[in-house]
Amino acid sequence: MSKVNIGIVGYGNLGKAAEQAVLANKNFNLIAIFSRRLICSKFNTKIEPYENFRNYVGKIDIMLLCGGSKSDLEIQTPEIAKYFDVINTFDTHKKIPTEYSKLNDIGKKTGHRIIMSCGWDPGIFSMIRAMFLALSKNDPITFWGKGISMGHSDAIRRVDGVEDAVQFTIPNPEAVKKAKAGNLPEDMPRHFRDCYVACEPKYEQRIENEIKNIPNYFKGQPTTVNFVSQKHLLKLKSKMLHKGEVISSFKTAGGSKCKMNFSVSMDSNPNFTATIMTSYINAVISLKENKMTGAFTNLDIPVSYLFEKKERENLIKTLC
Amino acid sequence: MSKVNIGIVGYGNLGKAAEQAVLANKNFNLIAIFSRRLICSKFNTKIEPYENFRNYVGKIDIMLLCGGSKSDLEIQTPEIAKYFDVINTFDTHKKIPTEYSKLNDIGKKTGHRIIMSCGWDPGIFSMIRAMFLALSKNDPITFWGKGISMGHSDAIRRVDGVEDAVQFTIPNPEAVKKAKAGNLPEDMPRHFRDCYVACEPKYEQRIENEIKNIPNYFKGQPTTVNFVSQKHLLKLKSKMLHKGEVISSFKTAGGSKCKMNFSVSMDSNPNFTATIMTSYINAVISLKENKMTGAFTNLDIPVSYLFEKKERENLIKTLC
Repeated sequence: MSKVNIGIVGYGNLGKAAEQAVLANKNFNLIAIFSRRLICSKFNTKIEPYENFRNYVGKIDIMLLCGGSKSDLEIQTPEIAKYFDVINTFDTHKKIPTEYSKLNDIGKKTGHRIIMSCGWDPGIFSMIRAMFLALSKNDPITFWGKGISMGHSDAIRRVDGVEDAVQFTIPNPEAVKKAKAGNLPEDMPRHFRDCYVACEPKYEQRIENEIKNIPNYFKGQPTTVNFVSQKHLLKLKSKMLHKGEVISSFKTAGGSKCKMNFSVSMDSNPNFTATIMTSYINAVISLKENKMTGAFTNLDIPVSYLFEKKERENLIKTLC
Repeated sequence: MSKVNIGIVGYGNLGKAAEQAVLANKNFNLIAIFSRRLICSKFNTKIEPYENFRNYVGKIDIMLLCGGSKSDLEIQTPEIAKYFDVINTFDTHKKIPTEYSKLNDIGKKTGHRIIMSCGWDPGIFSMIRAMFLALSKNDPITFWGKGISMGHSDAIRRVDGVEDAVQFTIPNPEAVKKAKAGNLPEDMPRHFRDCYVACEPKYEQRIENEIKNIPNYFKGQPTTVNFVSQKHLLKLKSKMLHKGEVISSFKTAGGSKCKMNFSVSMDSNPNFTATIMTSYINAVISLKENKMTGAFTNLDIPVSYLFEKKERENLIKTLC
């Protein structure tokens, strides 16, 4: 197989992790990183302004989109998917179906493949949930943390007077225990919300109150609000540890009990996410070999596609 | 969707569990069970002699093959796959590649689909090992038990003078701990082998010695041999509890640590295996819709195929 030419769009935490993951694989050539910021790579990767991506048609096979879901990916993915095969980690759950349908149209029209929402959750957790649902006919239960929730941190930052904030999601150990036993009550809180906020002291009372009443995010959930300095907050925000697990506890048609559990833990959320994205580069190639175009999620891709064609024949020998 | 017509071949523990799993799904019609034994179904399913399966061409869509790997499946699968789509749980690891190639030829020639080795291991564990390998670039580690190993029990039964035997596989807790920490030494025993044997007392010494020296199965592994009565053995053999887990502990290209773990536990091994087989009935239909023929393992099948077409559009909304 000739080497696969890769481009990276976005050079934050995820983009930097993706750079290292691509460089570590001898089957990949990292051609360029596209960024809006003028910034150097310590690995001497070529950095290009974002707009220049069009100049790389024919020189790059697959683009790893490493921008944020909130503002970058919705704009960049459709732009870039017109010219390249792409992988992104779009994780705004509510918008995934409309994104899928939009990107599927672009992929079908331009003959490209878009693997979307390809991180750990959404991503490999989605795949596991699908398998658990198919086997158990029950909704599997997911716990996240301890780790930072970007969505919840953003929600806090939108409160008037908040200078900066971060939210740690912590699974309720009682709920985890009950989920594993198959008797989690619908109304038992599944997570604790631990918020750290920097603001002027005079606003603290009002801000705490407002945070605890944000619907869908904190209202009705066990929420703690801690006020800290900007400096302390920066330190907290640098913690990239994360964890998660998917649990299914069910009875078979024959009446016997079964339990299934899938868990991950990581020292660095962006490094693990980049590992997953780069593992799906082979899937893009497999889809292309099978003349498939459009949008795909992890649910649509057999695990054998994560390997090179020549490796695939060996899998059955070593893994089955 | 019109109902899918199902047949079951073999009416031991797995066949009985499959019968209940098929009957529990309102999208399936259980047409008949094919057995060499004349035996009644307590659910009044029609029981047919094995040879009559050919009379059901056009009346049955998919056959679940519930015979044993040792003598039944190698003979029955190619015979039946000429006439029907089939799912089996063939689990003689060493023979899987040649079985695959033989069944793939039959499937391609006759236009059928064979999903093979579709239990928990081989099966969904194989799929998880493939994902873990793709992400970590390291061989994942599998632990089984506590539960009965059919292969090891058979190996003991072949020792001269053994009347009956059963072997419980028990993971070495020290090895599990080290695997999770990512530092399992190559030479550390991963499992304890707990053997229960019925034989004449005068042979005990020799049999214990012979068992402990069976290459590939017991030699060099921590093995305990207990001599018990036939009656006690029957009781032990009825224990169908089993467990297993796949572990991967690795470092990303960026140098950070990640851990992944997949585990299952079940009160009844045949019930869980039957649950998996029947969950792959939809996969056979999906493969057919996509005009795919030949042999397939769990590695080749995306999880979205485990759902009906009309459900598939909703998956992305609820699972991603």
